[in-house]
Amino acid sequence: MTRTLITGGLVLTAADELHADVLVDGAHVAGIAAHGSHGWSADRVIDATGTYVIPGGVDAHTHMEMPFGGTLASDTFETGTRAAAWGGTTTIVDFAIQPRGGSLQEGLDAWHAKAEGKCAIDYGFHMIMSDVNESSLKEMDRLVSLGVSSFKLFTAYPGVFLSDDGQILRAMQRAAANGGLVMTHAENGLAIDVLAEQALARGERDPRYHGEVRRALLEAEATHRVIRLSQVAGAPLYVVHVSAREALAELARARDDGLPVFGETCPQYLFLSTDNLAEPDFEGAKYVCSTPLRPAEHQAALWQGLRTNDLQVVSTDHCPFCFKGQKELGRGDFTKIPNGLPGVENRMDLLHQAVVDGHIGLRRWIEIACAAPARMFGLYPRKGTIAPGSDADIVLYDPHAEQTMSARTHHMNVDYSAYEGRRVTGRVRTVLSRGVPVIEDRVYVGHPGQGTYLPRGVPQYAN
Amino acid sequence: MTRTLITGGLVLTAADELHADVLVDGAHVAGIAAHGSHGWSADRVIDATGTYVIPGGVDAHTHMEMPFGGTLASDTFETGTRAAAWGGTTTIVDFAIQPRGGSLQEGLDAWHAKAEGKCAIDYGFHMIMSDVNESSLKEMDRLVSLGVSSFKLFTAYPGVFLSDDGQILRAMQRAAANGGLVMTHAENGLAIDVLAEQALARGERDPRYHGEVRRALLEAEATHRVIRLSQVAGAPLYVVHVSAREALAELARARDDGLPVFGETCPQYLFLSTDNLAEPDFEGAKYVCSTPLRPAEHQAALWQGLRTNDLQVVSTDHCPFCFKGQKELGRGDFTKIPNGLPGVENRMDLLHQAVVDGHIGLRRWIEIACAAPARMFGLYPRKGTIAPGSDADIVLYDPHAEQTMSARTHHMNVDYSAYEGRRVTGRVRTVLSRGVPVIEDRVYVGHPGQGTYLPRGVPQYAN
Amino acid sequence: MTRTLITGGLVLTAADELHADVLVDGAHVAGIAAHGSHGWSADRVIDATGTYVIPGGVDAHTHMEMPFGGTLASDTFETGTRAAAWGGTTTIVDFAIQPRGGSLQEGLDAWHAKAEGKCAIDYGFHMIMSDVNESSLKEMDRLVSLGVSSFKLFTAYPGVFLSDDGQILRAMQRAAANGGLVMTHAENGLAIDVLAEQALARGERDPRYHGEVRRALLEAEATHRVIRLSQVAGAPLYVVHVSAREALAELARARDDGLPVFGETCPQYLFLSTDNLAEPDFEGAKYVCSTPLRPAEHQAALWQGLRTNDLQVVSTDHCPFCFKGQKELGRGDFTKIPNGLPGVENRMDLLHQAVVDGHIGLRRWIEIACAAPARMFGLYPRKGTIAPGSDADIVLYDPHAEQTMSARTHHMNVDYSAYEGRRVTGRVRTVLSRGVPVIEDRVYVGHPGQGTYLPRGVPQYAN
Amino acid sequence: MTRTLITGGLVLTAADELHADVLVDGAHVAGIAAHGSHGWSADRVIDATGTYVIPGGVDAHTHMEMPFGGTLASDTFETGTRAAAWGGTTTIVDFAIQPRGGSLQEGLDAWHAKAEGKCAIDYGFHMIMSDVNESSLKEMDRLVSLGVSSFKLFTAYPGVFLSDDGQILRAMQRAAANGGLVMTHAENGLAIDVLAEQALARGERDPRYHGEVRRALLEAEATHRVIRLSQVAGAPLYVVHVSAREALAELARARDDGLPVFGETCPQYLFLSTDNLAEPDFEGAKYVCSTPLRPAEHQAALWQGLRTNDLQVVSTDHCPFCFKGQKELGRGDFTKIPNGLPGVENRMDLLHQAVVDGHIGLRRWIEIACAAPARMFGLYPRKGTIAPGSDADIVLYDPHAEQTMSARTHHMNVDYSAYEGRRVTGRVRTVLSRGVPVIEDRVYVGHPGQGTYLPRGVPQYAN
Repeated sequence: MTRTLITGGLVLTAADELHADVLVDGAHVAGIAAHGSHGWSADRVIDATGTYVIPGGVDAHTHMEMPFGGTLASDTFETGTRAAAWGGTTTIVDFAIQPRGGSLQEGLDAWHAKAEGKCAIDYGFHMIMSDVNESSLKEMDRLVSLGVSSFKLFTAYPGVFLSDDGQILRAMQRAAANGGLVMTHAENGLAIDVLAEQALARGERDPRYHGEVRRALLEAEATHRVIRLSQVAGAPLYVVHVSAREALAELARARDDGLPVFGETCPQYLFLSTDNLAEPDFEGAKYVCSTPLRPAEHQAALWQGLRTNDLQVVSTDHCPFCFKGQKELGRGDFTKIPNGLPGVENRMDLLHQAVVDGHIGLRRWIEIACAAPARMFGLYPRKGTIAPGSDADIVLYDPHAEQTMSARTHHMNVDYSAYEGRRVTGRVRTVLSRGVPVIEDRVYVGHPGQGTYLPRGVPQYAN
Repeated sequence: MTRTLITGGLVLTAADELHADVLVDGAHVAGIAAHGSHGWSADRVIDATGTYVIPGGVDAHTHMEMPFGGTLASDTFETGTRAAAWGGTTTIVDFAIQPRGGSLQEGLDAWHAKAEGKCAIDYGFHMIMSDVNESSLKEMDRLVSLGVSSFKLFTAYPGVFLSDDGQILRAMQRAAANGGLVMTHAENGLAIDVLAEQALARGERDPRYHGEVRRALLEAEATHRVIRLSQVAGAPLYVVHVSAREALAELARARDDGLPVFGETCPQYLFLSTDNLAEPDFEGAKYVCSTPLRPAEHQAALWQGLRTNDLQVVSTDHCPFCFKGQKELGRGDFTKIPNGLPGVENRMDLLHQAVVDGHIGLRRWIEIACAAPARMFGLYPRKGTIAPGSDADIVLYDPHAEQTMSARTHHMNVDYSAYEGRRVTGRVRTVLSRGVPVIEDRVYVGHPGQGTYLPRGVPQYAN
Repeated sequence: MTRTLITGGLVLTAADELHADVLVDGAHVAGIAAHGSHGWSADRVIDATGTYVIPGGVDAHTHMEMPFGGTLASDTFETGTRAAAWGGTTTIVDFAIQPRGGSLQEGLDAWHAKAEGKCAIDYGFHMIMSDVNESSLKEMDRLVSLGVSSFKLFTAYPGVFLSDDGQILRAMQRAAANGGLVMTHAENGLAIDVLAEQALARGERDPRYHGEVRRALLEAEATHRVIRLSQVAGAPLYVVHVSAREALAELARARDDGLPVFGETCPQYLFLSTDNLAEPDFEGAKYVCSTPLRPAEHQAALWQGLRTNDLQVVSTDHCPFCFKGQKELGRGDFTKIPNGLPGVENRMDLLHQAVVDGHIGLRRWIEIACAAPARMFGLYPRKGTIAPGSDADIVLYDPHAEQTMSARTHHMNVDYSAYEGRRVTGRVRTVLSRGVPVIEDRVYVGHPGQGTYLPRGVPQYAN
Repeated sequence: MTRTLITGGLVLTAADELHADVLVDGAHVAGIAAHGSHGWSADRVIDATGTYVIPGGVDAHTHMEMPFGGTLASDTFETGTRAAAWGGTTTIVDFAIQPRGGSLQEGLDAWHAKAEGKCAIDYGFHMIMSDVNESSLKEMDRLVSLGVSSFKLFTAYPGVFLSDDGQILRAMQRAAANGGLVMTHAENGLAIDVLAEQALARGERDPRYHGEVRRALLEAEATHRVIRLSQVAGAPLYVVHVSAREALAELARARDDGLPVFGETCPQYLFLSTDNLAEPDFEGAKYVCSTPLRPAEHQAALWQGLRTNDLQVVSTDHCPFCFKGQKELGRGDFTKIPNGLPGVENRMDLLHQAVVDGHIGLRRWIEIACAAPARMFGLYPRKGTIAPGSDADIVLYDPHAEQTMSARTHHMNVDYSAYEGRRVTGRVRTVLSRGVPVIEDRVYVGHPGQGTYLPRGVPQYAN
C-alpha cells in the first residue's frame, strides 16, 4: 500500500487546529504526529505548508438525476460527484426514491443502477418513502441493516411525496425500533397548494410568488408537527433544509426540552434571499427551490442557529435544473418551475467564506460541513474527521486563494450559478479520496467509479 | 527526552473514540497512530489494553487553603493536588483572592507563595476581585497578559466578596476590552441575608435552613442580572456552580439568543440534594456549600443542561472543611458553617458513573471534564485533549473496576467524604503529568513540585 | 308588559359586584339602581336578599340529540334545555351538522326541526362543517348573515368530521372575510387512529386506553397547527374543549404574540381526570369524551389559564349517552364507546364551587360562564350581562345552599352523573328567561317552546 | 340632594357600551336605565346626545410640586388637578415622599399640607419609601389601615431613592402581610450611573445620552429582579412606567406563570420616542424622564401589551418642569436635567386617539385609564366605573371634536407641551366630580378644595 505523508499544514477537525503531519497508509489515515518527532517516511510527500488539511466534505443532501415535474436534475452521478470533488466534498448521501405503489428496494435498486461505476467520490443513500404501508414499513428494518439507515418523509407535495401524519408516525415508530432516522421535508403542502392556486387565480405567476405562497409560518407549522410526532414515537428527527427563522425557533424550543431533534440548512438560505427570487425576466426561477428562499433577515437567525447548535448540518440539497429548457417549464406558472438549485461544488467554499466573514469559527466550519453530517448519518469516524483509522478523505484547502464563482468556471452540469460573480476567499487545492488523489493541485485526476458505495451505520447523535 | 508509547487503549477525546497508540516525547504528545502502521519505538511502553486513554482532568474551580469564616480549607496545595491526581485530574485552576483594600497582585503573590513547589500536578489561577476600583480595574489588563485571565465577582456575601452591579459592570467592560473572562457567583446575597436573619430569628438553626434561605429564585435572579450586565458590557460570562434549574433556564434562554454566556455545575449538585442537608445530628453540615444543594428534582434539569450544552463545564468547587472542628463552628447557627465540600478526587469517577448511568455519553464526559474547561480558560490544546503537541497529561482509566468512595480510602485531607459508601464503576489506573508518571498502577509516584504554574491564554469560547 | 323588580340582591356581572335593584320591563332589563333612590314600582317584586343576581349562563357548546357512532345523544332539546335551566343556564349554542355530501343549510334545517318549539330557554346554532368545498364555503357568508356565525372544523375523526389543512385554511380565509369565527376540535386524528389501532392490537381495550392513545402532545400539535393556519388566514380562532396543558401552552404563546386566538375548556377537564377513566367494571366509559380527560396535574394548568385569560370560556360540550345501552356499545373496544358526557346542568354550580375553592374570583365566574361566551359568539350584551337593554335572563343564585350532585336528582336525560356524590356549595333558586320565570324557587314553571331561536351577530373579540 | 339625569349618551364602562340614561343623586350614581322605561325626573338634565358618558379618568401616577434636583415640579396640586379635570381625569394618586432619615408619616403630612384645600378633583396618596428600616416597615401597616396602601421603591437613583434588594424584599414581605402593594421604579441605577459617568467622560452631554445610558436591558434586568423578589416575598407587584419591550417581556413571562405582577405604561412611551430626545438645541430636554423614551419600535410592543393585558394601566407620571429655568439646569450635562414630563391633561385624549387609530378598543380605553387603576389601588367601584353607588365622577366626552395640543392652550403650569401641535380627535365637554360640575361645556366651574382626599382600600387584583 502507498504511504503518503502530508506535512506542514494546519490540520483542522471539528475539535482541533493542529500543526501536525498526517500519515496516510493506503486508504486510511495511519497517524497524526508533530513534525520532527514521528520519524515517518512515505512513498509520497505532499507539502501542505500554508494550507488547511481538512477532512473531505460530507454533503448529506443531494439529488443527482432526480426526476421532478417531468424532467431530470441535470447532474448525473458522474458530473455531480466530479463537481463535488472540485468543491472539496468527498462523500455525498443521495436520495433514492421509492416509487408510489412500489417497494423501497425497487427505489434503491434504481439509484444503485444510476450511481454504480459513475462516481468520483464515495456515496451512500437515504431512502425517500413515497408510500408508507405495512410492506414498506417492514422493509425499513432490512434497509437499516443494509446500510440505508435514514428515511425521508414529506409533509409537502400532496399527491407526489406527501405522507399523512399517521404514516409519518408509523415510520417514526419503526425508526425508533430499528435505529434508523426519519428526515422530514417540513412544509404544510396542503395549505401551500391552496395559497398557490389562489395566487395563480389572481394572476400572480412569476417566480417570486413561489416564495410568497410557501409561507414561513407553514414551514414552522410542519416543523412543530413532525417534532411532536417524533416525540410521540420516541424517535429522533432530522429536519432538512430549514429556511425560516420561525421553523428554527421550533427546533430550538424542542432542543431546549432535551428532544433529539436536529436541523439542516443549506448555503442558499444563508447567502441568498427573496431578492433573488424577485429578479426580473424570469431570472428568479434560478432560485426556485423548496423550502423557498426567505427575506434576507432570516439569514441572521440561521447563522445564529448554526452557532448555538440548534442547526447541526449544512448540506446543499443540490438539485440542479438548467435555466434553458428546464426552469423555463415554469414560465407563466411558478408552480411548474422545477424545484432545485445547484450547489454541491460551492458549499465548502461558501462556508469558509462564512469563517472569513465571522459568522462561524474554523472548527465549526468542519463540524457542520464534515463531522456532524458524518455522525448524523452513521459514517463517523470513517468520514468527517482526520484520525487514525479514518478513511483518508483529505482536502488541502488554501485559505488565502481568491476565486469568483461562475457558471463559466464551475464543473456542475448546469447552465447557471446561483452565486454568479460572487468573490470568495479560499479554494480547494488537492483532494484525496481514500488516499488516492481526485484533484491534485487543481487538476482533476479522478475517474468515474473511483468512488464506492457506502453502507452506513445507524445514526450517532450527540449525547 | 524519554519516549513513551501507550498502546492498545481506546483513546478518548471530546471528539473521538479511537483504537490507537499514543506516542509521548518528553513532556508532550508526539503523535497518535493506528497500531501496526506507525513503526514507533519508545523507551517505555505502557500497555493500555482494556483501558480508556483520556486527557487528564481539568478542574477549573478549586479553593486550596482558602480562608473562610475564620478557618482554612483543609487541603493544602500539596494534599489537594495529590488527591486530584489520584482522581485523574492533572490540572487545577485555583482562586487567588484580592484582599479588600489591597491589589490583585498582592492576592496573586499570596497564592503563588502557597502553591509554589507544593503541587503534584499543574496549576493556574483565577483572581477573585473583592475590591473593584480604578486601580484594580487597571490591574486586570496586566493580569490577563501575565496569564491570569479570569476574574470572579460575587453578587453574594455582602461585606465580604459582594461587588455592586456598577462594579460588576465595570469589571465586565474591562474584560470585554482585554480578552479576559468574568466569572460570577450568582446569588442575591442581600436578599439571602434577610431571609437568613429571619430564619435564625424564628429559631431555624440547622444546616438544612442553609438550603432553604438560599432560594433557587434568588440564584435565578442573580444569574439573569449578570447575564444582562454582561450583555450591556459586550462581554462573555461564565457562571460558576449553577445548581438551580431556574438559574439554568436563564442561561439557556440567553444562549438561545446567541449570547456568549456559559455555565458550570458541580458533582454535588448532580449527585446530592437537600436530603443530605437534612441529615440529622448536624451531619447535614457536611453538605453546606453555596450555591446550596437543591431538591433532587433539580438534578434532571442539570443533566439535561449538560446534554444540551447549556452547561459546558463540571468543576468541583473543591473547598473542604473537616466536620470536626471546622463544620462544627456552625452548630446552632447555620450561617456560621464554613461553606464548601471536598470533591477534587471524585469528579472524574462520578462523571464516568454518569456515563454508565446513561446521563451523558463517553465523549461528553471528556468534554465537560477536560476539554471544555481547558478551552474556557485558555489552556487548550495544551490541556484537555490528546493531540500532537499537547502536554502529555494522560490518564489510563479502567472502565470496569469498581470502587467504593470513602473517607477511609480517599486522599483528600478531610475527615469525611460527601459520597461515603457510594459504589461507582471505573477507576484511575495510571496518570502522567507532562509525560511523567504521578500515579502508576495505583501507586503514587509523584512529588511536591512536580506540577508547575500555568500562565493561561485568553479564554477561547465555542464558535 | 310586566314590570318586575328584583330587590336586595348582590348583582354580579363580569365587571361589577353591586348591591342594587334590577328593574325588568317585559323581556328586557330596564335599569339597575341603588335601592332607595330609584323610586321604581313593579307588577312583581322578587326579593333577592341573600342571593346573587347573575346573568343567565351561556353554554356555547352543547350537542342535543347528536348522532354519534350509530346512536343519539340522550338529551333532546326539550330535556336538555330544561336541565340547563335547572342549572342556571339560559342560553345554549348547539352544533348543527352539515351532512357529508350535503349543504350547510340542510344541516341547519335539520337542527331547526329538532329544536323548534321544544326549548325551555333560548338557543342558537354553530355549524359543523363536514364537507368543505366551493359550495359550502360560499354558504358560510349566507349563514353569517343569517345569524349562524361560527363554524366548527375538525382535525380529528378521519372519515367522519376531519377536514384537511387546506380545507381548514379555506374556511378560515372565508371567516376572515365575512366576520365569522372558526372553531376547531384540535387533535391529530390521523395519528390517534394509528395509536388506537395499535392499542387494540395489543389487547388494550378498556376505556382508559381512550385517554392513553389520545395523547396530550397530539392535542398540542393540532392546536399549534390551527393557530398557524389562522395566522396565515388572518382569521381569529376559537379552540374548543382544551384539556392538555401542552395545548394551553400553545394558546398562551400565541396570545403573547398578540394573535386573536381563544380557548374553551369544560368542567370535566377541571374536575375529573384519568383516574375516572380508569374506574373498574367499564365504569370508566362514563368519562369517555374527546379531547379526553387528562392526568389530574393538568387541572392546575387549566385553572391558571382561566385566571390568566389564556382560556376565556368554560362550556360543557354536553353530549350525554346513557351507560346502559349506549356507553356499553364500546365494551371490549374503547373506540366504540360514544364520546361525550352530560354536564349542561352542572356547569354553573361547579364553577361557583371553584370560586368557593379559590380557583377563580366571583366576577371571573360570571365572565367565563356568561359574558365571555356571549361576546365570543355575537350575543352580547343581549345575553351574558345584566344591563339596561339586555335580555332579562336572570338567575337568583343562593351562594350558601349546599347540594349533592347525583343522577337521582338531576334533570338531564341520562342514567348517570359524571359528578355523582359530589357536594358543592351554591344552588340556583330562580331563573328568568327574557323576563319570564322558568324556575321559580326551585320549581320548574317553564314549558317547551318558551325559548326562542337566537340569530347571532358576528363574534366580538376582546380589544 | 341634587338629582341630575344624564340622558341620551352612550355610557361606556370597561365592560359595556350602553345607550342608557344615568341618574345621579347627590354625589353618587343612583342608577342606569334604558331611556323611556325608568320614569326618572331630576333637578337637572344634561343632554348627552352624541357624546360618550364615561367614568372620570383615574391617573395613578402624578408628582405635583415634587422636589427633584434642586427644583420643584411646576404644577401645584391646584394647577395640576385643574388641568387634570380639563383632561377628563377626576382622580389622581400622587406620591408622598418619606424623607431620608424621617418617617413615612412625616412624608405623608407634608403632602397632605400641599394638597389640602387646593384640589379641583379627588386625590389619594402612594408613599415613596426612601429609607426602609425597622421603623418604616412597621409604619407600613398603619398607612395601609389609613388608606395609603401602596408603596413605591426604587432600584434606581442611588443615594436618593434607591433601596437595596434586601430592603425591597423586606418591604414586599410586609406588603404581603398587610395587603398593601409594592410599586417599583425598575431600572438598574448603579449600572446606569456607571454608564452615565462614562458618557460624560466621553463628552456626551446632550439630552439624547440620557436615553442611551438608561439602557433597555437595564430596565429589563431590574424588572426581572423585582419580579423574583416579589415571588420570594409572596407579594403582588406593580411596575411603574414600563417603557422597554424587554421589560414588558419579563412581565409577560411572569404573568404566563400566573404571578400577580402588573405593569403600567405612560402616554409618552406610546406616542414619543428617542427621536424627540434627539431634537436639537437642547429641545430634547423636554422629553427627559426616567425610564427614558425608547426607539419608536418599542411602541408596538407596548400597544400589544395593553391589548394582551400584560400591561394593565396607563398613568402619566406627570412631573412637569419648565423648559426655561428648570430643564435648562441640565444644559451641558444631561444628568442634571430634571426628570419628568407634563401629561396629566393629555392622557384621556391621547388614549382616545389610540382608539381612533385602532390600537385599542373603546372599552379597553376605559379599562386602562379608569377602571384598572381604580381596582389596582383600592378605589373601585367608587371610582373607575359608572354604576349604582359609584361616585358620580362622570365625563361627557365628544368623540368627534378635534383639537390641537399645545402649550398655548393647555392648562398645566408648564411652558411647553410634550405633544405640541399634535391633532387628535375627541375632547372633554363636561366633567362632574362627585355629582358637581368642574368643567361644564368646556368652561371651568370648579374651585380649589372641591376635590377631597381619598383614603384607599387595599388593592384588588384580577381574579
